[in-house]
Amino acid sequence: MGDGFSLHERLAADTAPVAELTLCSLRLMKDARFPWAILIPRRADIREIHQMTQADQRQLLAEITKVSAAIERDWRADKMNVAALGNMVPQLHIHVIARFEGDAAWPGPVWGAGSTEFYGEQALAETIARLNAALRAA
Amino acid sequence: MGDGFSLHERLAADTAPVAELTLCSLRLMKDARFPWAILIPRRADIREIHQMTQADQRQLLAEITKVSAAIERDWRADKMNVAALGNMVPQLHIHVIARFEGDAAWPGPVWGAGSTEFYGEQALAETIARLNAALRAA
Repeated sequence: MGDGFSLHERLAADTAPVAELTLCSLRLMKDARFPWAILIPRRADIREIHQMTQADQRQLLAEITKVSAAIERDWRADKMNVAALGNMVPQLHIHVIARFEGDAAWPGPVWGAGSTEFYGEQALAETIARLNAALRAA
Repeated sequence: MGDGFSLHERLAADTAPVAELTLCSLRLMKDARFPWAILIPRRADIREIHQMTQADQRQLLAEITKVSAAIERDWRADKMNVAALGNMVPQLHIHVIARFEGDAAWPGPVWGAGSTEFYGEQALAETIARLNAALRAA
């Protein structure tokens, strides 16, 4: 963390911590409608994937594919959505979202669709535990 | 192309060809509101990035970052959006979209926002040529 990285306050507010991976902080979006992970590389002042070193890009890719495959398998997702948008939050973060036919935004994108449904305290803890277990099994 | 890949008909209809890269077909979305490239790995029966071999994943990443950096620079984009969604088209394809503060969907995502504005024939040809030139300069 010595290079000045600190989590953007908007990401800190909208997500809950799950695990610290080699490059990224893995967090869970606080929206119970979708199994929705966020990966944030712990690098300061990076807004685009192509601004990262090649080594960091490869590590990011490895973490994206590991998280995506783990969620797909454990939640039996119909489709994974993987996206780096960042129009609102100027800190690189990658969305990894399990989608299901007939979910609250299907087949459209999740961003801007309907209203957030917050987890209850126990459901949030259980979902974080489930995501960690899925990653360990990956 | 010997492994049975053929471009999905929906992608063929919605996009115009730009260039054949090492792994991907690079195409332009026929929506004049956004500089919007699509990368389609020429691999059959792949729907998720994590289904690809590690070598293909790395090549895909290299092509994504090259295209993204070239568009960002040439169009002076405020933000690049990079996404693999594929809820509607069951063939892996990556969106690489230049975004501008105040564009037709800003700061929301482009998918499902408003109505497509088609290029005129000359503008389409000019945009394809510009994208190719930006890639050569990359």
